[in-house]
Amino acid sequence: MDFGLSPELAELERRIHDFVAREIVPLEDDPRQDAHGPSRELCLELQRRGKEAGLWSLHAPRQYGGLGLSHVERAIVFEAAGYSLLGPIALNCMPGEGDHHMLEMIATPEQKDRWLKPLLDGALKSTFAVTEPDNGAGADPTQVMTTARPDGEDFLVSGRKWLITGYREAAFHIVMAQTEDAAGARLGATMFVVDAGAPGLREIRRMDMLDDMFPGGHSEIELENVRVTRDRILGEIGRGFRYAQVRLCPARLTHCMRWLGAARRCHDIAVKYARWRRAFGKPIGEHEGVSFMLADNQMDLHHCRLAVRHACWLLDQGEEAREESSMCKVYCSEKLAQVVDRSLQVLGGIGSSNDTAIARIYRNIRAFRLYDGPSEVHRYALGRAILKG
Amino acid sequence: MDFGLSPELAELERRIHDFVAREIVPLEDDPRQDAHGPSRELCLELQRRGKEAGLWSLHAPRQYGGLGLSHVERAIVFEAAGYSLLGPIALNCMPGEGDHHMLEMIATPEQKDRWLKPLLDGALKSTFAVTEPDNGAGADPTQVMTTARPDGEDFLVSGRKWLITGYREAAFHIVMAQTEDAAGARLGATMFVVDAGAPGLREIRRMDMLDDMFPGGHSEIELENVRVTRDRILGEIGRGFRYAQVRLCPARLTHCMRWLGAARRCHDIAVKYARWRRAFGKPIGEHEGVSFMLADNQMDLHHCRLAVRHACWLLDQGEEAREESSMCKVYCSEKLAQVVDRSLQVLGGIGSSNDTAIARIYRNIRAFRLYDGPSEVHRYALGRAILKG
Amino acid sequence: MDFGLSPELAELERRIHDFVAREIVPLEDDPRQDAHGPSRELCLELQRRGKEAGLWSLHAPRQYGGLGLSHVERAIVFEAAGYSLLGPIALNCMPGEGDHHMLEMIATPEQKDRWLKPLLDGALKSTFAVTEPDNGAGADPTQVMTTARPDGEDFLVSGRKWLITGYREAAFHIVMAQTEDAAGARLGATMFVVDAGAPGLREIRRMDMLDDMFPGGHSEIELENVRVTRDRILGEIGRGFRYAQVRLCPARLTHCMRWLGAARRCHDIAVKYARWRRAFGKPIGEHEGVSFMLADNQMDLHHCRLAVRHACWLLDQGEEAREESSMCKVYCSEKLAQVVDRSLQVLGGIGSSNDTAIARIYRNIRAFRLYDGPSEVHRYALGRAILKG
Amino acid sequence: MDFGLSPELAELERRIHDFVAREIVPLEDDPRQDAHGPSRELCLELQRRGKEAGLWSLHAPRQYGGLGLSHVERAIVFEAAGYSLLGPIALNCMPGEGDHHMLEMIATPEQKDRWLKPLLDGALKSTFAVTEPDNGAGADPTQVMTTARPDGEDFLVSGRKWLITGYREAAFHIVMAQTEDAAGARLGATMFVVDAGAPGLREIRRMDMLDDMFPGGHSEIELENVRVTRDRILGEIGRGFRYAQVRLCPARLTHCMRWLGAARRCHDIAVKYARWRRAFGKPIGEHEGVSFMLADNQMDLHHCRLAVRHACWLLDQGEEAREESSMCKVYCSEKLAQVVDRSLQVLGGIGSSNDTAIARIYRNIRAFRLYDGPSEVHRYALGRAILKG
Repeated sequence: MDFGLSPELAELERRIHDFVAREIVPLEDDPRQDAHGPSRELCLELQRRGKEAGLWSLHAPRQYGGLGLSHVERAIVFEAAGYSLLGPIALNCMPGEGDHHMLEMIATPEQKDRWLKPLLDGALKSTFAVTEPDNGAGADPTQVMTTARPDGEDFLVSGRKWLITGYREAAFHIVMAQTEDAAGARLGATMFVVDAGAPGLREIRRMDMLDDMFPGGHSEIELENVRVTRDRILGEIGRGFRYAQVRLCPARLTHCMRWLGAARRCHDIAVKYARWRRAFGKPIGEHEGVSFMLADNQMDLHHCRLAVRHACWLLDQGEEAREESSMCKVYCSEKLAQVVDRSLQVLGGIGSSNDTAIARIYRNIRAFRLYDGPSEVHRYALGRAILKG
Repeated sequence: MDFGLSPELAELERRIHDFVAREIVPLEDDPRQDAHGPSRELCLELQRRGKEAGLWSLHAPRQYGGLGLSHVERAIVFEAAGYSLLGPIALNCMPGEGDHHMLEMIATPEQKDRWLKPLLDGALKSTFAVTEPDNGAGADPTQVMTTARPDGEDFLVSGRKWLITGYREAAFHIVMAQTEDAAGARLGATMFVVDAGAPGLREIRRMDMLDDMFPGGHSEIELENVRVTRDRILGEIGRGFRYAQVRLCPARLTHCMRWLGAARRCHDIAVKYARWRRAFGKPIGEHEGVSFMLADNQMDLHHCRLAVRHACWLLDQGEEAREESSMCKVYCSEKLAQVVDRSLQVLGGIGSSNDTAIARIYRNIRAFRLYDGPSEVHRYALGRAILKG
Repeated sequence: MDFGLSPELAELERRIHDFVAREIVPLEDDPRQDAHGPSRELCLELQRRGKEAGLWSLHAPRQYGGLGLSHVERAIVFEAAGYSLLGPIALNCMPGEGDHHMLEMIATPEQKDRWLKPLLDGALKSTFAVTEPDNGAGADPTQVMTTARPDGEDFLVSGRKWLITGYREAAFHIVMAQTEDAAGARLGATMFVVDAGAPGLREIRRMDMLDDMFPGGHSEIELENVRVTRDRILGEIGRGFRYAQVRLCPARLTHCMRWLGAARRCHDIAVKYARWRRAFGKPIGEHEGVSFMLADNQMDLHHCRLAVRHACWLLDQGEEAREESSMCKVYCSEKLAQVVDRSLQVLGGIGSSNDTAIARIYRNIRAFRLYDGPSEVHRYALGRAILKG
Repeated sequence: MDFGLSPELAELERRIHDFVAREIVPLEDDPRQDAHGPSRELCLELQRRGKEAGLWSLHAPRQYGGLGLSHVERAIVFEAAGYSLLGPIALNCMPGEGDHHMLEMIATPEQKDRWLKPLLDGALKSTFAVTEPDNGAGADPTQVMTTARPDGEDFLVSGRKWLITGYREAAFHIVMAQTEDAAGARLGATMFVVDAGAPGLREIRRMDMLDDMFPGGHSEIELENVRVTRDRILGEIGRGFRYAQVRLCPARLTHCMRWLGAARRCHDIAVKYARWRRAFGKPIGEHEGVSFMLADNQMDLHHCRLAVRHACWLLDQGEEAREESSMCKVYCSEKLAQVVDRSLQVLGGIGSSNDTAIARIYRNIRAFRLYDGPSEVHRYALGRAILKG
């Protein structure tokens, strides 16, 4: 058993931490951001800085210019990046990192050249379009109502999707749809690549959300007989949910990593504040009412970090780690949100202002308990697995 | 012992509830709102509707056109108003209701005519300016650094304040300052009324906050030798903190009342959603993972309501109820926030959007655990009182 | 609305409190107790003291020598009695108080003379035998497997029961059984009175339990064709579960009352200890890590008390109060156990010794979250009711 | 990074698990146990079985016949042993294991032969006597009131100690005392070895406790001028608290390991029960109200295990790991107790009986949050370390 980092990885972590502190944190107050996230211009500046620092797309396979990071290595790198909400954009590990992984796993060589390479270069962005309004796909993805019906060699995809993150910034969309054959028989769900601007595809609205960190925000969209050719099918027809799992297990963990960094940031701010701010005759950090919150923060950060690294290690061993990644997701999304909440509480009134990074992280981390499966769905799945034994 | 409402009060509650549902809730999507709260125009429309419905300033003394509501009656009325974040504005019970109460308790008849009457009419707005930057007044109000130094018959007030709610909308400000006599001896804290536009008073900035429900938002301001005449002193010199307590005990409770209404709103939305939304083969409300959250919501709402009404009843008996109002504040600010959080969780991804009222309430209720004393300060005070016995 | 106590009730509360402190608390170390509760002799001494103090069976109807206490009055009286685990025995409000209430509601006049009167006099004890081994009745009482089959005019009752509290001390047992008619058709569950010593009734074993406060402990028993005559049926055939509800709603509340008293006892011990015990340079009560626990205790005690009294008031108004009594049971069983747990924690190592009353209360209160419906069953029922609307 | 076990260690774990299941679990109902723990005879039988299985004192250094287990290896071995409360006795890893470690670290070769060797052989038992009544040593060990005054070459030790675990079974006691020189100057605390039966040493009483797993129970004792010769001093005079830390960091972790095993046991029982027991139409494990508890159990067990192993690994690297062992202690003592509590709750009423191992574990694990520093002391220390930075 070995919990240590190699000197190279420790050095990489330090480099990223310095980069984020020096180059990215100051951009957090950049006005090129609104309720729908950082603007395209700001994202390009982040990309430029990441590339200049030699930190862009480190997770990419070596043939695409990355370091081919293992999952454990990602745990270190992405946590360091997450210290600022803008950090992962500068390293190209959010948004889209889940799509990168999935394409790497299931796309054909041609598809990789066409879509994965430019994603990793930063030339393109993608979306992963599963969630639907009207009692369609959500916590239970099998409720997908969007359909794909054959039309000659092609498919016509129709339906509605919402909570589609980064829609306006994306060059293409990976759309999950229930697929039928010519006779109307159900073949299962399939993932189709739909280009931005495809005839029949339109944005119904951009949604107003609690979170504001994702470039492009979130959209509700409609597909009306959007034609998709065979070469735009990812993997095999009917295996869409299975591929989604391929994407989701590691994607859940990368969320945990980035939020770990963000929660650590809040904790650091709270510690600094607790040393300085005085009340009732001494620094508030000398009040146990405050110092116990800091102790709990440190414990939660520590245990989340161990859980993430362990699950990553399992993935690196070739295991599916479904239960471990579910446990990690539940635990991190709940505990890290508490770390952020306590940090805000330590700052008192000023904690709910944008004078520090905490308030924004507070708003944004709330959604982490919802996306990639709300806690309840993971507990449901874990419970069933336990009962089955 | 009697937990019942009089028929008149029950009828009033019903009327307010209907008014809020029919007239106010539809205004929640009104575009005349931004990150710094509803605009002056929207507030005036809310005021107009409240007055037309005969529900404006019900808590005002009868000589000022109100019903002279007891504290228990306020508990019923303000909860009903709070069902929409805009409801209390339409009933004139937020913001400013704490100032109304304090002025009623400590102002001279002349001062009441000058300031209380127009506040209750809706002609003016006020702020309560205590909190300060730079290790000044906050959770520990005795740390006030703003000073008032005599200059002939007048005082010159100097200092900085922040988190001053509604500054831009207010016609006057109640400013807490450490007061000295001509010899520089400390006389204690005093409350001074400073008019908007007074020479030496200026806004440094408007603050960006997690909450967005208070008209005018929150400002950081500076006072530089602002001249205040004797007739603008509230109560006696040096008794400012004591008056603040007069204001705070009931003010804490009225926050609890309004947030009780808002939390109930979220719960109602969650219940409706849980009946409709399906996952894994049945309405999500039939999953215990969801229905247990709803049960916990109902319990918390019920117990918070009992606690509020009990503390109000004590105030109505002429008791100070300091411990009870502290307990109420801690309990309601923590439990009602959980009700809102669970409601959001029930809705899943869409809960973090502005498609329902929940996400906005979620953001705004966070500050409730901070203002009027964070939980830690109340627990600290309660603990000391328990130890003293 | 009125949260006040009448002077008479306040005086009665004071009297009971004094009685328990002076006469009962010293008996807590009496050696006539073991893992199966206080012995018969000790119970008789408690009964004698309660009678001499004029505090025996206060809840009994006036025609049976009691005060005919309302539910709200019971809330005050039983909490005061519960300050010692032995107090309720001295006031005859535990065990058996649930049976008293049920018999008063559903027994015929003859049955009341035969069973209720001596129970209230202290001449007899009863058990309420519902719970069963082998996937029989438990959290879901409808799973009763014990049967009652007609045999001429009589019934023959057969089955197994366990967790039967006070079996060895009881003169008769109220046994729930699935009832059939002569043709074998199911008539529903019925309650039968079975005398101690009835042929076919035997104790399989006395069970070793976490709790040790109930006289006689808990037994597993067997009934084999126990003959029951018609006059021993309580209420109508087939309505057993409905009567059980009649018993359970108030019975749940009286558990809450008594445990409220016991939890208050623990809190009082913890407060006293926190004033005396020193660590790290000052009394531990001056450490917020301790004083916050005491503040939380006080809040939980206060809110539980309000909840109990409110539910009682509803019962006094003639309402069924099923949801309120469920909420009360969940809330009190969870929160009061936390009060006890925190009190133990305040005392540190010595808290887990029998040097104070806390450790014993800690052991005993655990079962409160299980009997009369575990929290999960109440949340399940509450959730269903909420969904139904 | 490597979270894997070597094949040898995995095999050892399996062997211990089998041994405990086959040889030790059946002894749990052995009548040779009472409120003060398993009797000497039962302990000897456990020792015999452990030796026959080749599992006795595996943690001992190789020169004393053990495997010289690293801390990480202990984590695996002790968790497996802890699956039964009697398991650690059979492996000689409780009680006394903390003393073994401390003696190994600080005793002279002669002292090791005299005391450590027979402890590891199972010929002798020891106690660690620090805690005192009367506002003496406890959570704050520096409050030691027991004194050691020089008398010629010897010391005379006087004072009172309580909560001394295993006093009646021990051949010698390691007594912490404030040491003075001949002039009465304070030299700091020192650890003295006092033999059972030494003149001046006596037991005041055996204490009644919530826990019942430690052989010999817990005693209150008195030392009155107990003569101790120089060769009976452990380490240097005045460094007692420092040595106690040497003992406490790993000792805390070994408690975590054993309780991890015990909590896992409870979880396993609950899972099995949840599969079998039916309520409301299906196995209770298919109710999310139950399965979510099982999911939380699994998460807590998993994260506690990771935390323990990580802290052990740090110790194995030669680090002091004070913060990590504190975090581990707080986290495990709180979370594992919740695992046990939830397991009990899953079983309902029968969970509070001794029909399964849960109730006993429930009672015993409560003290884990108290000994080796209550949670509050660890949070206090962690908070101070965080503030200091």
